[in-house]
Amino acid sequence: MSSGLLMTRRIRRTPYTAKVEAAGVRGFTVVNHMLLPKAFQPSLEDDYWHLREHVQLWDVSTQRQVEIKGADAAKLCQWMTPRNLSNAKPGDCLYVPLIDENAGMVNDPVLLKLANDHFWLSIADSDVLLWTKGLALGKGFEVSIGEPDVSPLAVQGPKAENLLATLFGENIRKLRFFKFGWFEFEGTKQLIARSGYSKQGGFEIYLNGSHLGEKLWDTVWDAGLEFNIRPGCPNLIERIEAGLYSYGNEFTFDNNPLECGLGTYCELDGDFDFIGKSALKKIADQGPARQMRGVVYGAEKLPGVAIPLSVLVEAKTVGQITSGAWSPRLKRNIGTSMIDAGYWNVGQPVIVVDAAGQKHDGEVIKLPVS
Amino acid sequence: MSSGLLMTRRIRRTPYTAKVEAAGVRGFTVVNHMLLPKAFQPSLEDDYWHLREHVQLWDVSTQRQVEIKGADAAKLCQWMTPRNLSNAKPGDCLYVPLIDENAGMVNDPVLLKLANDHFWLSIADSDVLLWTKGLALGKGFEVSIGEPDVSPLAVQGPKAENLLATLFGENIRKLRFFKFGWFEFEGTKQLIARSGYSKQGGFEIYLNGSHLGEKLWDTVWDAGLEFNIRPGCPNLIERIEAGLYSYGNEFTFDNNPLECGLGTYCELDGDFDFIGKSALKKIADQGPARQMRGVVYGAEKLPGVAIPLSVLVEAKTVGQITSGAWSPRLKRNIGTSMIDAGYWNVGQPVIVVDAAGQKHDGEVIKLPVS
Repeated sequence: MSSGLLMTRRIRRTPYTAKVEAAGVRGFTVVNHMLLPKAFQPSLEDDYWHLREHVQLWDVSTQRQVEIKGADAAKLCQWMTPRNLSNAKPGDCLYVPLIDENAGMVNDPVLLKLANDHFWLSIADSDVLLWTKGLALGKGFEVSIGEPDVSPLAVQGPKAENLLATLFGENIRKLRFFKFGWFEFEGTKQLIARSGYSKQGGFEIYLNGSHLGEKLWDTVWDAGLEFNIRPGCPNLIERIEAGLYSYGNEFTFDNNPLECGLGTYCELDGDFDFIGKSALKKIADQGPARQMRGVVYGAEKLPGVAIPLSVLVEAKTVGQITSGAWSPRLKRNIGTSMIDAGYWNVGQPVIVVDAAGQKHDGEVIKLPVS
Repeated sequence: MSSGLLMTRRIRRTPYTAKVEAAGVRGFTVVNHMLLPKAFQPSLEDDYWHLREHVQLWDVSTQRQVEIKGADAAKLCQWMTPRNLSNAKPGDCLYVPLIDENAGMVNDPVLLKLANDHFWLSIADSDVLLWTKGLALGKGFEVSIGEPDVSPLAVQGPKAENLLATLFGENIRKLRFFKFGWFEFEGTKQLIARSGYSKQGGFEIYLNGSHLGEKLWDTVWDAGLEFNIRPGCPNLIERIEAGLYSYGNEFTFDNNPLECGLGTYCELDGDFDFIGKSALKKIADQGPARQMRGVVYGAEKLPGVAIPLSVLVEAKTVGQITSGAWSPRLKRNIGTSMIDAGYWNVGQPVIVVDAAGQKHDGEVIKLPVS
């Protein structure tokens, strides 16, 4: 393997990994104990432009599903998030912050409501399966919880709809954003949602059944040739510009959802209880101490952010850039950073210190970049 | 980075990573969202012989600690494991299987008893922090749970005791296996245990305080020069021969501790309750369907096991080798495999199918290899 990663069973392959390798993947990272392709194209920028214009096939099997079924499933889901789930309907996808008793972020999954007593949490990089099982066991809830054999394959980019319509019919066009439906594939019914970890439009096929993985990859690939399809993966430039965050990078246990710009998903005055409610109310009363922002900095392309970069106002550290990349549209580096209260206004001049200790002029911006 | 891993904040560096890089690490893997060095020496075999004869310094910060403190701490720990903890004393390390309600393995940490109401779980690769917090929240236990700033540095090999005696005094020699004591370093008290992920003897320094990481690395390194110290990491050959298992490789959620050869740590008739007790009793009554064993196979060195290898008896699949390596002492490949009932006797002839589909004669052996 060119990736340099030690390949073992502990770091799980996906139903698409053999296809991804054959397509020339340039390495992997690890999310949820599973391989996520890290790059295919020789340059991140080339990949960025392609994603904005055409369509890409992404192995995002690492978005594992935590399945919650049973009489207490809805009660458990509501207890796990400050977002009000009472109006959710089968067929809805909901972005839900999960928090602990201190209002610290545990994960930020997409919840899929399959039925009134049946949910999937499509998770970022932490073992929500253990969290959910622990809560349910402790409470004695009547639920069954597990990780089904579901491996999402994302089709992202402006041509995704036309591509999928050739495979799944015109009904796919009627799916609204963050809704899902059931579509036929090889004699099975598969869940497809209009969603994905980019702002370029597209779908995620929640393939249920690993044995169908290579067939699905090939089927989408072959139909995609006329749409200039390429293999891909979440694009760092695009996701930063889009204001899409990455659990573990932009926020952790140490951050609360109000800092993370997720206040819109937190209902503090509702008549439902959730873990961390009193802690979150207290934070809301005092106002968050920092807020997620974009920062543009430097006029020359800088290396990737392996270690967070300090953001200064005069001599004071007011934040740290946790993800950063060169934006070929803005012709500046762009990053995400929590910024301390008093300094988070758009237009605030800042200094960013790179890994080599060099200082670069920058300023606070709003995400997403339009 | 030569590792090919995408370096981001999500995959955490350790207090020793800069030293590990300076020492010429040849790549990393990811455990508990953190970097674990995967190799330093040009060959695994060279490293194996060195570990058996001299002393090595291993960055095992990925063995994160889940700290459990408070009035219900002992109760919570006992609920989490089938191992009877009632006789444990402060200063004891205990290897404890953690299981879920179906008796599936959640993790196999070392529990350190710091005080009657204060424990650390030194974990393998799953988010036991979330599991523990979920259980405690659900039950309403009076405990505080967190991940302290503790990053174990292992000193492994037959010369480890002489080396540490030069740094921490002769008292270190009195520590018995799986006991810990407190030793002075730079004006702080640090926990040192006689333990480690090898059978070559040695210690783990549970450094509390990341800011002391590089100083500790340098201090042990400098004192180790006269003992022929090298940088290292868990050695695949040595750990297989030693019968040391790796969570996620040898067993997962789908396995119970009786299959894993951990029955000796399960007290089924005790007067204490634990998660999964009734499921585990049922399995014990029926007898486990498979058991962990060693397998030797092939007369020529085979590539590493990225994907499990089938173990056959005649045409029937009776197991899969999940970790394997060439043993320079046995002059055969050696691996670990669950083997189905009826085929697990030592000496059972088997066929192992390698990644290329070639078949190799082999047989079931007992681990550890003496």
